[in-house]
Amino acid sequence: MREVYFDHAATTALDAAVLEEMLPFLGVACGNPSALHRRGRQARQAVERARHQMAAAIGAHEGEIVFTGGGSEADTLAIVGFAQALPPGHVITSAVEHPAVTQAVRFLERSSDWQVSVVPVDGTGRVDADAFAAAFRADTRLASVMLANNVVGTIQPVAELARVAHEKGALFHADAVQAVGAIPVDVTELDVDLLSLSAHKFYGPKGIGALYVRRGVTITPIIHGGGQERGLRSGTENVPGIVGMGAAAAAAVSRLPAERPRLEELRDKVIDGVLASVEGTTLLGHRRCRLPGNACFTVRFVEGESMVLRLDAEGVAASSGSACASAATEPSRVVTAMGYDAVDARGSLRLTLGKENDAADVEYFLDRFPAVVNALRAMSPLSARS
Amino acid sequence: MREVYFDHAATTALDAAVLEEMLPFLGVACGNPSALHRRGRQARQAVERARHQMAAAIGAHEGEIVFTGGGSEADTLAIVGFAQALPPGHVITSAVEHPAVTQAVRFLERSSDWQVSVVPVDGTGRVDADAFAAAFRADTRLASVMLANNVVGTIQPVAELARVAHEKGALFHADAVQAVGAIPVDVTELDVDLLSLSAHKFYGPKGIGALYVRRGVTITPIIHGGGQERGLRSGTENVPGIVGMGAAAAAAVSRLPAERPRLEELRDKVIDGVLASVEGTTLLGHRRCRLPGNACFTVRFVEGESMVLRLDAEGVAASSGSACASAATEPSRVVTAMGYDAVDARGSLRLTLGKENDAADVEYFLDRFPAVVNALRAMSPLSARS
Repeated sequence: MREVYFDHAATTALDAAVLEEMLPFLGVACGNPSALHRRGRQARQAVERARHQMAAAIGAHEGEIVFTGGGSEADTLAIVGFAQALPPGHVITSAVEHPAVTQAVRFLERSSDWQVSVVPVDGTGRVDADAFAAAFRADTRLASVMLANNVVGTIQPVAELARVAHEKGALFHADAVQAVGAIPVDVTELDVDLLSLSAHKFYGPKGIGALYVRRGVTITPIIHGGGQERGLRSGTENVPGIVGMGAAAAAAVSRLPAERPRLEELRDKVIDGVLASVEGTTLLGHRRCRLPGNACFTVRFVEGESMVLRLDAEGVAASSGSACASAATEPSRVVTAMGYDAVDARGSLRLTLGKENDAADVEYFLDRFPAVVNALRAMSPLSARS
Repeated sequence: MREVYFDHAATTALDAAVLEEMLPFLGVACGNPSALHRRGRQARQAVERARHQMAAAIGAHEGEIVFTGGGSEADTLAIVGFAQALPPGHVITSAVEHPAVTQAVRFLERSSDWQVSVVPVDGTGRVDADAFAAAFRADTRLASVMLANNVVGTIQPVAELARVAHEKGALFHADAVQAVGAIPVDVTELDVDLLSLSAHKFYGPKGIGALYVRRGVTITPIIHGGGQERGLRSGTENVPGIVGMGAAAAAAVSRLPAERPRLEELRDKVIDGVLASVEGTTLLGHRRCRLPGNACFTVRFVEGESMVLRLDAEGVAASSGSACASAATEPSRVVTAMGYDAVDARGSLRLTLGKENDAADVEYFLDRFPAVVNALRAMSPLSARS
């Protein structure tokens, strides 16, 4: 049976060339970068080389990259690490953020006197710039809006929103975990102050992420200890992980000019094919302002999880929304924020394409998908209502 | 030139057999453990198998292991994650803790109304049980004392201290980062409530750690998001890292009965050889209650860093104290806490042996070391005082 991996938004397979670069640091020669001897110095050089690669990939300076244990840690560091250094104030975020952002701001609300406003999105998942501007108060210190949504792939007008935030005297954080490697990300063009990254979303290793912290922006650590990463993230550096992240970022950026249109073409075949071949399907998210590899639908009268399990039996790995959350309600939060009802939300299916996919994968999927939906609808109590 | 790695307390080389177990999860087949499809389920199974291995290695239940991004994160989670769920109270720690513990309790002091007492140690680095007991107050909620010291290798009477803490109505956390794999660690025998671990200290990968949280003990997360690790550590699981940690823990425990006496014998040769061949050297730490691989000295009238660099030129990787801290004052904090003066503290040299070392390494080191010290003393302004 053919294996088709359409779940790149959940995680990507580590690039074989990236693993090659990591392997020396997964061997006997990898010292602690804080050690003064040769093995330590070699590890330090590898870390700083990767920091240079990571910075270059997003148009940042090396001193602006803090390596973390992943994207959720980067989001938490951006929000909690920023807030805990200041007197309580007001934070703005959107209704479709990743749980790392929504839970971090909830933590601020619960544990201190910070207040949070959640700005709604339109039917395509885009933040309304007027509603965003109207949410600012005199004590708004930070706004956090993701660059691209993890469920429906919608790309937010981050540069515009960041400009508004700065005009209002607040800083701006963007969760760019889904965006880096998929679309061009330049921190100067976006004009963001903080930006979160995760290596395993762009064919790098799991367990490593980074936070871009613009020069002059003060944040405080959430993990304490020996003062690594300029005091912002203590703990012995994950040298192979950092090396892998740097290499993966460099590779993703160099691949981007050719890979983006290729994926957009495959994605559009998936979108057009599904909409044409299966009745009662609606594309979720924005038709154009969306990630190159993201095709996300609601399929009426079918459970998303049932589709995922049936597709899995056909060799197709997909998702009913976000794999970033253990809570089953997570995709429906994003979908209902876009104005869909509960039935639509329960029938969401996310197909996220990546560099291993080709036209044959798309054909295979489109060949199998109508039968999957029909079989489920035939046994579904939901479809009786139609 | 012979290469002798005597810096195992800073980091150990990843075990080749452990890397073999990690490799499938560093390849294309590694899904996101939260995904419902086959690749996701395989990743989930691997994580849970590793959790079982990690738990078994310390006598815990699987549900008591929370995987983290490293040892410092585990320490911070234990202390900050415990404290932030409670009204402010009092914490007790010792004068020789790892910076992850000292900085985490300082964070509590600075950011909230928690108060901290630091219990002194004796000349061998052991916490005085009477002083420890006397430090408790009615509002003491937690005591944190490491199982084994990262600089001088002294093993603390944790079972005794934990019993005192429980009698006083407080919980007990032990940083066991240096101990696991080096001496038997059983959470039931130690009677601890929280215990921190780091894989790269026992021939596992960097960037992965764990916190043992005894059943019934409530802590709250410091990294927010999708609710992985029972809500205590969000973020896509570092599947290869977790797999490596489980495999490394299992291997370390099975190696322990033979490896411990072997290392103790090598270590004692280092200790006896140094004390016999170089005047003005003193063993730091406890003669018997010390880690099997740790030999730590103060060498009067010589700078620790100078010895490390000279030894490095001879092919020997050593440390002037702890590599866990970027601050150069870090080893001296531990050494002066034991009652030594500043000159002694500046002349500290830590040699930490591990599984790759043999008697020839010890002989090589002992053959070179006197000349290293003599050369430094000949040019040292400090030695003029003698």
